[in-house]
Amino acid sequence: MNDPLITLTTDFGEGSHYVAAVKGVILGVNPAVRIVDLSHSIPPQDIRSAAFFLANSVPYFSTGTTHVVVVDPGVGSSRALLYVDTKGHRLLVPDNGCWTLLPAPSMVRRLEEARYWRPTVSPTFHGRDILAPVAGWLSRGLDPAALGPVVTEWVRLKLPAPRREADRVTGEVVYVDSFGNLITNIPGDWLANFGNARSPKVSVGGVAVTRRVATYAEADPGTTVALISSSGMLEIAIAQGSAAVQLKAGRSSLVSVVLTD
Amino acid sequence: MNDPLITLTTDFGEGSHYVAAVKGVILGVNPAVRIVDLSHSIPPQDIRSAAFFLANSVPYFSTGTTHVVVVDPGVGSSRALLYVDTKGHRLLVPDNGCWTLLPAPSMVRRLEEARYWRPTVSPTFHGRDILAPVAGWLSRGLDPAALGPVVTEWVRLKLPAPRREADRVTGEVVYVDSFGNLITNIPGDWLANFGNARSPKVSVGGVAVTRRVATYAEADPGTTVALISSSGMLEIAIAQGSAAVQLKAGRSSLVSVVLTD
Amino acid sequence: MNDPLITLTTDFGEGSHYVAAVKGVILGVNPAVRIVDLSHSIPPQDIRSAAFFLANSVPYFSTGTTHVVVVDPGVGSSRALLYVDTKGHRLLVPDNGCWTLLPAPSMVRRLEEARYWRPTVSPTFHGRDILAPVAGWLSRGLDPAALGPVVTEWVRLKLPAPRREADRVTGEVVYVDSFGNLITNIPGDWLANFGNARSPKVSVGGVAVTRRVATYAEADPGTTVALISSSGMLEIAIAQGSAAVQLKAGRSSLVSVVLTD
Repeated sequence: MNDPLITLTTDFGEGSHYVAAVKGVILGVNPAVRIVDLSHSIPPQDIRSAAFFLANSVPYFSTGTTHVVVVDPGVGSSRALLYVDTKGHRLLVPDNGCWTLLPAPSMVRRLEEARYWRPTVSPTFHGRDILAPVAGWLSRGLDPAALGPVVTEWVRLKLPAPRREADRVTGEVVYVDSFGNLITNIPGDWLANFGNARSPKVSVGGVAVTRRVATYAEADPGTTVALISSSGMLEIAIAQGSAAVQLKAGRSSLVSVVLTD
Repeated sequence: MNDPLITLTTDFGEGSHYVAAVKGVILGVNPAVRIVDLSHSIPPQDIRSAAFFLANSVPYFSTGTTHVVVVDPGVGSSRALLYVDTKGHRLLVPDNGCWTLLPAPSMVRRLEEARYWRPTVSPTFHGRDILAPVAGWLSRGLDPAALGPVVTEWVRLKLPAPRREADRVTGEVVYVDSFGNLITNIPGDWLANFGNARSPKVSVGGVAVTRRVATYAEADPGTTVALISSSGMLEIAIAQGSAAVQLKAGRSSLVSVVLTD
Repeated sequence: MNDPLITLTTDFGEGSHYVAAVKGVILGVNPAVRIVDLSHSIPPQDIRSAAFFLANSVPYFSTGTTHVVVVDPGVGSSRALLYVDTKGHRLLVPDNGCWTLLPAPSMVRRLEEARYWRPTVSPTFHGRDILAPVAGWLSRGLDPAALGPVVTEWVRLKLPAPRREADRVTGEVVYVDSFGNLITNIPGDWLANFGNARSPKVSVGGVAVTRRVATYAEADPGTTVALISSSGMLEIAIAQGSAAVQLKAGRSSLVSVVLTD
């Protein structure tokens, strides 16, 4: 039996004392836990970024792992805190839609049983005072049914949807990584012809992309390329450069693919 | 019996090789340790920030945890290195006052027994060569008495103290978090009337704060609010914005509360 | 028997979902692993920085530790991925020279056995799809011989070499730490006279360094000093200041030491 795993995803900023406090509380409830930092760099209060992050992180973990998410602009309001089971991954999250991009849940519960919380709950830090101790208790084997009642309604994020027409696909940039690569919301499998003889014209923010490649290394340094990202989405990159800087593009920049002959 | 916990708090910067070296040395002495990163983002050589950080982090951990702190502008000088027991929390710290805000210690020892250090000690990296191996030895069950003699004098930081008068409280901003919230040194319980019918007038850097709230979510976006922080101090925030940026305030900005009728 | 250790060194950026995915995959293969973050702040695709980082980190770990390094501008090209044993430290690295500054290896293998990889390998994320699962398998006791054939050729970085003449040593800045200290490639033991009666004149980027010291604390705040760094190299620093900012120096800035009488 391995020591249980609890991951943390927050917008507190790397090295924030808020992160330290959450870790201390978890380890206080269960000193055997191994805490795995996923990110403390979610942009402040940016639920969309959290949703993108979780969709690209949680599925790589084993089922049974507990993921604590503290991106919580509504802290202290009447928004609920939830326990979610999505394909065996366990989430402890504010009910703000941050898990919208994960698979449909098999169970969602509202955290109500205060006996698993810290005795005093700050109205501005439910991550420390509710989610952290609940994660600790779950890691000790507590049945999620003890946390609160099943709920059937929860907040879903409205995310910009890509559109597919006969000869054209449109979408937008949803994430810029640390290399300046632009990840879009256009699924790679919508572009089945991408890379074959028909020459789709990709443009981002009105700028045409000159080459389609399978890997960054194929293109000469400085070339703007389109490829399928490691998460399966259309991505625009500049080989050994930053597409974000050089194309002046960022999140929400419009992306279109015209499938010409 | 769980694997022992050692936390790290440094000003080395996230991802610095100095952090990696400290981790390697600890795990070399005791391969069973679980290392918990608290922060590597303390502003360089900023002992006041370290003191604030530790006061808001250490108390959330279980007693028995060992906390290594490397914010050490005096490295290589005659300043001592200390083992401190404060309410059962074990600290390994430079004697520069960085633990001033934690409760009075039950024991303080000066690290003198070089047999628990690395064989060669760099005059500029006592964190790696002294504190890290000593932490490893403590985690293996070494009696702190073996580390060096008890001392009764140590450096105490002079920190700006808030002041309380009949109708007025004054203090200053001591920390700006990643959301731009301004945490002050004014204890929340000095403001017992805060939030009741009397209307205290809070100002920061000369700018009046318009609303008092219990949580960020109560106020309309963009409103400047005063509240009690999750650490129990007076805090000034802007709902869904950055008080630091929008009020042009930061650490040391003066804060006053006038208790009028 | 302790839980196995796997360290991570990447250029993904702190808090990137790429880091989270790598951690998930490792823990999926071996849920008992303790993952130790070394750095996710290597400058993007900067192999020289990775080489410097590894040289200053890996040797402090116990032999047997597995170090996963993902700084990989050539991902998806024909560049190999390697298993390296250097004095008992195990590396999983792209064959791009990032381990050039570590001691000569006793064994190097090319990763070829796809049965230890993820079933689908993205052409742009070998860190997640090859290195992470291979690290997981090694931590479960897999014989490295199962990973692929021994190779005898690999990429070596050409790094700027310091030069030693009769009365003069020249080199350059290879790293700027978070304090703004300038670490050079000039070995401290080349400067045996450094600090004695003969007065070596150190200059960086043409600016003369005024004092030689053993520790930062020796000098008055604001003084530019030369000392031997904690890694044994010539270092230029400004006491309680940033040499990088104040001397307008950075990586590749030329450094000379004239040994006069």
